[in-house]
Amino acid sequence: MTNSSAAPIVPVILCGGSGTRLWPLSRKSYPKQFTALSGGDTLFRNTLRRAAAVTSAAPVAMTHDDYRFIAADQMAGFGGRVVVEPASRNTGPAICTAALLAYRTDPNALTLVLPSDHAIRKEEAFADAIRRATPVAAEGAIVTFGITPDRPATGYGYIECEDVCDGDPAPFARFVEKPEAAAAAAMISTGRYLWNAGMFLFAARTVVDAFREHAPDILAHCQRAISGAQEDLDFLRIEADAYCQNPDISFDHAIMEKVDGVVLPVDLGWNDLGAWDTIWREADRNADGVATTGGAMALGCHNSLLRAEDDGQRLVGIGLENIVAVATKDAVLVADMSKAQNVKDAVRALKVINASQAEESPRSHRPWGWYESLSKGDRFQVKRIMVKPGGRLSLQSHMHRSEHWVVVSGTATVTVGDMVKRMTENESVYIPCGDIHRLENNGKIDLHLIEVQSGPYLGEDDIVRYEDIYARAAA
Amino acid sequence: MTNSSAAPIVPVILCGGSGTRLWPLSRKSYPKQFTALSGGDTLFRNTLRRAAAVTSAAPVAMTHDDYRFIAADQMAGFGGRVVVEPASRNTGPAICTAALLAYRTDPNALTLVLPSDHAIRKEEAFADAIRRATPVAAEGAIVTFGITPDRPATGYGYIECEDVCDGDPAPFARFVEKPEAAAAAAMISTGRYLWNAGMFLFAARTVVDAFREHAPDILAHCQRAISGAQEDLDFLRIEADAYCQNPDISFDHAIMEKVDGVVLPVDLGWNDLGAWDTIWREADRNADGVATTGGAMALGCHNSLLRAEDDGQRLVGIGLENIVAVATKDAVLVADMSKAQNVKDAVRALKVINASQAEESPRSHRPWGWYESLSKGDRFQVKRIMVKPGGRLSLQSHMHRSEHWVVVSGTATVTVGDMVKRMTENESVYIPCGDIHRLENNGKIDLHLIEVQSGPYLGEDDIVRYEDIYARAAA
Repeated sequence: MTNSSAAPIVPVILCGGSGTRLWPLSRKSYPKQFTALSGGDTLFRNTLRRAAAVTSAAPVAMTHDDYRFIAADQMAGFGGRVVVEPASRNTGPAICTAALLAYRTDPNALTLVLPSDHAIRKEEAFADAIRRATPVAAEGAIVTFGITPDRPATGYGYIECEDVCDGDPAPFARFVEKPEAAAAAAMISTGRYLWNAGMFLFAARTVVDAFREHAPDILAHCQRAISGAQEDLDFLRIEADAYCQNPDISFDHAIMEKVDGVVLPVDLGWNDLGAWDTIWREADRNADGVATTGGAMALGCHNSLLRAEDDGQRLVGIGLENIVAVATKDAVLVADMSKAQNVKDAVRALKVINASQAEESPRSHRPWGWYESLSKGDRFQVKRIMVKPGGRLSLQSHMHRSEHWVVVSGTATVTVGDMVKRMTENESVYIPCGDIHRLENNGKIDLHLIEVQSGPYLGEDDIVRYEDIYARAAA
Repeated sequence: MTNSSAAPIVPVILCGGSGTRLWPLSRKSYPKQFTALSGGDTLFRNTLRRAAAVTSAAPVAMTHDDYRFIAADQMAGFGGRVVVEPASRNTGPAICTAALLAYRTDPNALTLVLPSDHAIRKEEAFADAIRRATPVAAEGAIVTFGITPDRPATGYGYIECEDVCDGDPAPFARFVEKPEAAAAAAMISTGRYLWNAGMFLFAARTVVDAFREHAPDILAHCQRAISGAQEDLDFLRIEADAYCQNPDISFDHAIMEKVDGVVLPVDLGWNDLGAWDTIWREADRNADGVATTGGAMALGCHNSLLRAEDDGQRLVGIGLENIVAVATKDAVLVADMSKAQNVKDAVRALKVINASQAEESPRSHRPWGWYESLSKGDRFQVKRIMVKPGGRLSLQSHMHRSEHWVVVSGTATVTVGDMVKRMTENESVYIPCGDIHRLENNGKIDLHLIEVQSGPYLGEDDIVRYEDIYARAAA
């Protein structure tokens, strides 16, 4: 089978989610798709890589405003662009927008929609599945991919096929929400159910027509949102007022349940990485069922997952049974494996008491790089700052603090008042309170520096921005 | 009853232990007696306070070389002195030494030996017990204090009385090592057993005579070790060669099992804080048996202990049963409560893989104050340093690193080469690689500064000391 479409398939990567069930590793400020949850590269980049293996077209990342710089950063080397959703409206409006954007270029363009927060072990099987689905999509079907189940999982949605799934593309009967254990077992035994992995392949025209027929309001809102979209740096920002009129609805509910779609049964070594018990299930485990990562050590433990996420950290488990323990620099989770779904309740409870750890990662990502608070005391704070090559902080001043900067790696271009100078490893500069200053990296390698702040008020909001290449001066 | 001795009772506080069963809070570099394990002040200072409530005599702290500065520091406000044991030889030689030192001042001096790593909730009962034991000790008995048991604990040693303990001082039959559960229950039911709390009250003469009769070698070694002792700053350093010839033996084995001692049954709300399960037992627990401290939170947990020791840290437990979880900045323990005794095995396992967390605390204590590593990277390290008033680091230089110092609190006197200058909050200085330098605090408040090190090698051993007020120049 070959690609019967003229243009290459356009990959659309959905990466706007902010799942909390993998706290404390995944937090709202830096959610799981952008982390190296299963080792190696990040889930988002793994998704881009899988897409690049099946098509030469530049990818489109659909994400939330908060993640636009992270997504753009991680797309380095893959080309493509970031489409910024002004608010999350679930996959229905997101996929409609992606289809409309593809349609403008080529109504027959095939579009491959991929969630970025899942893992796929069998990359060759994935590529093969896309190849097999291509002619079906080119002929006008919306193809979804159903994972052949290997156990009666209760954590996934299912796709019911009209007949026993024999491996060929086939019409499907309906989508089934996450079932109870007994129902899941009964479903599995029929051989007619597949796991819903949320991946789709279709011609842009097919989906635009489907929205026109089954959800014309969404199509209209998305069309207006695209007409009003603004190019902002490298981002395409969808217009907010129109987009926000969309209902919060999944593509399954809005379209798939109403059309004669096709499901292709596949075996991809797929895992939705939905909660820590799923991570444990997929991890390399020893004979006692124990998986450890980083500086974690298990003594007399069984069926447990022990993760130390921070380089300088040790985690020791002793005599544990069915426990997941995840340690990060500023937050530790210890949960019974059977309660892994309740992690989101913990995050909610932390929000109630205004614990920053509920949503904020220790490392704060910015368009120019990142920073981390190393130490806070009375009237002082120490930060480690990384500026990417080409990165440029805003021209700014503070009302309440002075800063000492010590470059520890790379070369900085520093502005203080009228002075502009180059500083490299082992050089320092002082920024008196009130002085207008700027930090930038015009070099070829990352710039790392240590900032020591002194003053009576050290909040992030003590900043006056005079100029900002990332359009944040007004913020 | 009144104190029938002429001189006030001399408190001898044993604080040389380095227990590992409360890792990661208690580590060899900073063991539990010097921590605020049960909230409030440190266990050592609580012990000093209890002693000060019953006697006006200056306390004597018997400790290990490694802890001499910590002990001296924590004795601030209590007067007294620190006697440095050159090596640990258990309580036999330590108490013999303390008795000999008291004897030199006054052979009839009453000496109160107190471990410093236990908790005593009923301070008034403690004072009352000492008052009641005083005339008995003054008349020539070695009095030990037996805790009335409230459960068949297996983690404690027991004292068997000749008769049922009725509350009065009475002769005892023997010491019993930690029993198995069945034996403990049988013992408790007889009403003749008390927990051994390791506290003693005696006249110096009594114990010196007892050693002369039952352990003359120990007496001789300790006499020579004292004759050769050196006054070093505020410390009395016992001579090593003689002291090290002592066997490693407890006072119970060396003396108490051989003399006609007296035990006073007491109810002190005593706890040996020996392992995390004991800490949990003594902690304030909610209706579900859950105790949390610091930034710890429990959701649907039962009979568990959750501690977040670091200010900036959150620990969340979900659905746990009989679990202890203790999070520190650089190490986390998660253990089944019934395996609390195995924590020492974990420490041993960490030592095998050369994990610094096995024995080193994140904060390194020095005679002049402390330091903490905040961040390490390629060719750089950031430290936070605290220098006490009067504290003075050695005059030193480094072969491989330069340093930037930024004062964030207090006032520093800084020497770099021929320059000496005062620096206060928000001032900085640069120390080029190879330059001789010194940092001192001649002020009245703590000095805090941030040190940024740059260079290809940043080990603590890259230091040449030219002069040191703490006698470490050769080290």
